Amino acid sequence: MTEDKMKTVGIIGLGLIGGSMAIDLKRRGFAQTVIGVEKDPVSAQAALTIGLVDQVVSYEECIRQADIIVVAVPVGAAVKLVPDILDRFGEMPGQAGHDGKIVIDVCSTKSQICQAVKYHPRRAQFVGTHPMAGTEYSGPWAAQPGLFDGRACIFADSEESAPWALKTIEGLYAALNMRPVYMNAEQHDVHTAYVSHISQVTSYALALTVLDKEKDEKHIFDLASGGFASTVRLAKSNADMWVPILTQNHDNVLHVIDTYIEKMQELRDAIADYDEAKIRKMIEEANRIKKILR
Amino acid sequence: MTEDKMKTVGIIGLGLIGGSMAIDLKRRGFAQTVIGVEKDPVSAQAALTIGLVDQVVSYEECIRQADIIVVAVPVGAAVKLVPDILDRFGEMPGQAGHDGKIVIDVCSTKSQICQAVKYHPRRAQFVGTHPMAGTEYSGPWAAQPGLFDGRACIFADSEESAPWALKTIEGLYAALNMRPVYMNAEQHDVHTAYVSHISQVTSYALALTVLDKEKDEKHIFDLASGGFASTVRLAKSNADMWVPILTQNHDNVLHVIDTYIEKMQELRDAIADYDEAKIRKMIEEANRIKKILR
Repeated sequence: MTEDKMKTVGIIGLGLIGGSMAIDLKRRGFAQTVIGVEKDPVSAQAALTIGLVDQVVSYEECIRQADIIVVAVPVGAAVKLVPDILDRFGEMPGQAGHDGKIVIDVCSTKSQICQAVKYHPRRAQFVGTHPMAGTEYSGPWAAQPGLFDGRACIFADSEESAPWALKTIEGLYAALNMRPVYMNAEQHDVHTAYVSHISQVTSYALALTVLDKEKDEKHIFDLASGGFASTVRLAKSNADMWVPILTQNHDNVLHVIDTYIEKMQELRDAIADYDEAKIRKMIEEANRIKKILR
Repeated sequence: MTEDKMKTVGIIGLGLIGGSMAIDLKRRGFAQTVIGVEKDPVSAQAALTIGLVDQVVSYEECIRQADIIVVAVPVGAAVKLVPDILDRFGEMPGQAGHDGKIVIDVCSTKSQICQAVKYHPRRAQFVGTHPMAGTEYSGPWAAQPGLFDGRACIFADSEESAPWALKTIEGLYAALNMRPVYMNAEQHDVHTAYVSHISQVTSYALALTVLDKEKDEKHIFDLASGGFASTVRLAKSNADMWVPILTQNHDNVLHVIDTYIEKMQELRDAIADYDEAKIRKMIEEANRIKKILR
């Protein structure tokens, strides 16, 4: 694949992330053709109806046709798919140009997937990425243009990718208007646990609490405008995506949950003691987040 | 004050809530004149510059001129102001029409304020309300038109208000496009703790956790797009408002925090045990919130 040759991008998993990438890579001219693999027949049909991809093909056909293969499935499945795809890159000697193929993943944890291909003879053709964008919805219906604009994309262990492969994928994310951030896979998993995964866990716990305490759903609906709706938004995210993230990033997630429970307990005790000075101090400390997030 | 007489509304506290009410009550014609009381001179000047009110006046002048007085200050201060205003209604025998004056509050807890005026001889001229709308910002700069549109407004212990006063205030909130919900003050405080106050507390704990674990602010900024920003949004809210809410609604807030810590501990243990079935079950239970909030 040369720089000036128009690319075929193959996307495995036509959900929120895969589908949204398909839309912008095509309409912004990065890809000439976007093909997709989707094992769920309803989602596959929807992706065609909506027009996310030019064609839905088989897994094997996708690897054969695509210059760049994007693995956009939950991380438990991605860990198995990426090495298999690298294997197949080597098993297609009759295919012209297959040496230039690249596979990337877009998963929310990076250590295990980078570990899985660490000693693979074609490791250099893999680029591990984590585009930090999303909504609480899933499926091809949730795909939207502009989802990635202005957000950060993490490149994990990028020094283990071939420079030409990295450069191509940097171009792909530039077309999505993403800001590249480089870190190693372990660092990535620590920092995403500390910022992103803990947010998910606290939202689930909040939803579980409110559903437990508040038996009358009408009250939840009426009172949600006070900030509950945005705080609990992530609790709508599905188990298929989050079970493997929370178990793969087990140690970091537990670590940050334990700190969270400590902080909550501290705030609880200050309220229990009517310790207004302490509550105020903790709130003002928490307010520092304003300076970081706009 | 008769129905067809155009009203003067006096707003004490020209912050997010008071300022936003001022904008819409004037532009939608509910009030002919909106006057304000604001003890902070910078905020007072800002309110005039922005044009939130026609005039900034003294507390005494506001009570003299206004037909309806809206107390829009933190709940600790409101608990003292409302009985004082009712006292002053009785001390103005020379003023024409003062018998028809009404005072309302807009605070997030209702038991203590309703208790404070329970046996006041002019209790009937008070209407306790909680318009369930807001943002994480504060001050006259945060005021915005349309803030209340489509949200719920709680009327607490409304049977203790005079029918004519209640009717007038229902008209005020109708002009703000709010949906009235009636409950007693104790119920209100239970349900807001269970839905709204717990969201606030979990956001503060989240901000404290992330600021503690993540020493590098750049990582917080880069990784915030993954949902952290919306989950932590409420942690920007200020201590002046929230310290009195959390201490006034002490018992209900502790009760729901304890349930929250239990749920978090249960989720933590499931992750610690790599118990994917249990994690999945809890996430799917949390997902039920989707059906309630759109």
